[in-house]
Amino acid sequence: MTLFMEKAVISINGIITPASEAKIPVLDRGFIYGDSLYEVARTVNRTPFQLNEHFDRLWKSSSLCKMPFTFSRDELLKEVLQTIEAFKKNDSQSEVYTRIMITRGIGEMGLGKSAVQTKNQRVIYCKGFEPISDQKFTRGMSLCFSSRIRNDRRALDPAMKSGNYLNSVLAYLEAEERGFDDAILCNAHDQVTEGTTFNLFAVIKGVLRTAPLSIGILDGITRRDVIRVAKEQSINVLEEPIHKDELLAADEIFITSTLREVFPILKIEDRSFEHPGPITQKLRIAYREWAAQS
Amino acid sequence: MTLFMEKAVISINGIITPASEAKIPVLDRGFIYGDSLYEVARTVNRTPFQLNEHFDRLWKSSSLCKMPFTFSRDELLKEVLQTIEAFKKNDSQSEVYTRIMITRGIGEMGLGKSAVQTKNQRVIYCKGFEPISDQKFTRGMSLCFSSRIRNDRRALDPAMKSGNYLNSVLAYLEAEERGFDDAILCNAHDQVTEGTTFNLFAVIKGVLRTAPLSIGILDGITRRDVIRVAKEQSINVLEEPIHKDELLAADEIFITSTLREVFPILKIEDRSFEHPGPITQKLRIAYREWAAQS
Repeated sequence: MTLFMEKAVISINGIITPASEAKIPVLDRGFIYGDSLYEVARTVNRTPFQLNEHFDRLWKSSSLCKMPFTFSRDELLKEVLQTIEAFKKNDSQSEVYTRIMITRGIGEMGLGKSAVQTKNQRVIYCKGFEPISDQKFTRGMSLCFSSRIRNDRRALDPAMKSGNYLNSVLAYLEAEERGFDDAILCNAHDQVTEGTTFNLFAVIKGVLRTAPLSIGILDGITRRDVIRVAKEQSINVLEEPIHKDELLAADEIFITSTLREVFPILKIEDRSFEHPGPITQKLRIAYREWAAQS
Repeated sequence: MTLFMEKAVISINGIITPASEAKIPVLDRGFIYGDSLYEVARTVNRTPFQLNEHFDRLWKSSSLCKMPFTFSRDELLKEVLQTIEAFKKNDSQSEVYTRIMITRGIGEMGLGKSAVQTKNQRVIYCKGFEPISDQKFTRGMSLCFSSRIRNDRRALDPAMKSGNYLNSVLAYLEAEERGFDDAILCNAHDQVTEGTTFNLFAVIKGVLRTAPLSIGILDGITRRDVIRVAKEQSINVLEEPIHKDELLAADEIFITSTLREVFPILKIEDRSFEHPGPITQKLRIAYREWAAQS
């Protein structure tokens, strides 16, 4: 087996090991059923960024998933900070990627409460990551529409960040086969929902548009901040469903995510853009300035 | 941590250990994304039953999940039989439950092909199980309708047996909260699809009804066999959508699954049945006779 990023570390219930050595029981429900919740946070200037917001959402996922937590915010925070510190000892330069995964516990086969025989398992993965450079930003990325629809919130709510990720994995693999960098998923009415791992924005006739939370998407932390930042810049923002044809005709398209911040789409299906649009550029700068200060 | 069934064993890529000691890397995609496929097989009279059919379906899941296997049927079969034998050495009496889980491999974060850095991981879990006794059959079980709809096949096809099981887990937890044994999931049009871990049949006006595969359900092996056995018994079988109201008014309802074979529903929401119906009883006997001979 290949050694993963050598400096990466994983904490399991507070015990930190090199990432490549970290193991969990096969009978953990995270492995058997994808019965786990997660968050991905990052540092800005090597300082943990928006952990509070990520914790708020993790606890919201806990409620949506009927997965009560047996630990407190303070306990988890302590472990997260310890894991980040352990990585920083291994790597004196990189920004830190932090994936927090909570499983329902270890147990016997069976879907009910009584099958779970332990407390929640806490897994924290820290490794280095490179923030998007100006060069990368200028190159942007390409997206296609997946032939797959987004999970319906009445079946499995995309607002819940869970270990059931195949809907996105399969959309991504399809994009890869078609030669695109990533995929957008629509709902059954050809309305844009979100990408595999990001929210989506478009500038259409001077208005900044993004799908409303009610359509069944992740309540992205960066999405929220970008909406706020845009309003501060006197940009009109509209959270209403966007038909895929409207997206194809948009003036600018960008994605938001914790790791990629504001990132431009320079190709969508057959449609190409020469360079990141002015509003995309303006919002990237304004978002970064705000993030560096907070 | 509680010790699980002491005699149970788990094979990981051919290495067999006690089930409670078996561990897999955190960075296995089965853990991170639920990016795994599975089958549950059983023995009949301590002899592996329908492994061929389970393998056929596993390879069909492989194709639906764009997860090519790096091992042959013969290699997997050998490991499955070895794991069953290892369990039988620990337990000289029980029938054997066998869960076969295949993950896309171990890798870095990321949804694409290049993130996966190893071959598929093969995990086989064998433990004892008790076939449904006559007493249990007579007691039957209760079902409610989940408020959650089944995953849409255009989002994540239920015909693919994957490690993304939260749609069923959440339906089950809801049933448990409401005091029912398990749950049925309908689609967005209030048509019955299947249960959390089983297919569903109903006798309606003398006809044996079950949802068609095209509605988005698992192609159950026991479902198939029961349809065949019913036809051999000159029972009319209709694979057409069943509205939930039709199910509530049915004369008999039963489920099918590998472990429970033909098993009666004696309560569905407010509606109760005094005892398993005649067709349910007849089919259970006919199915068991066929299974014992094959």
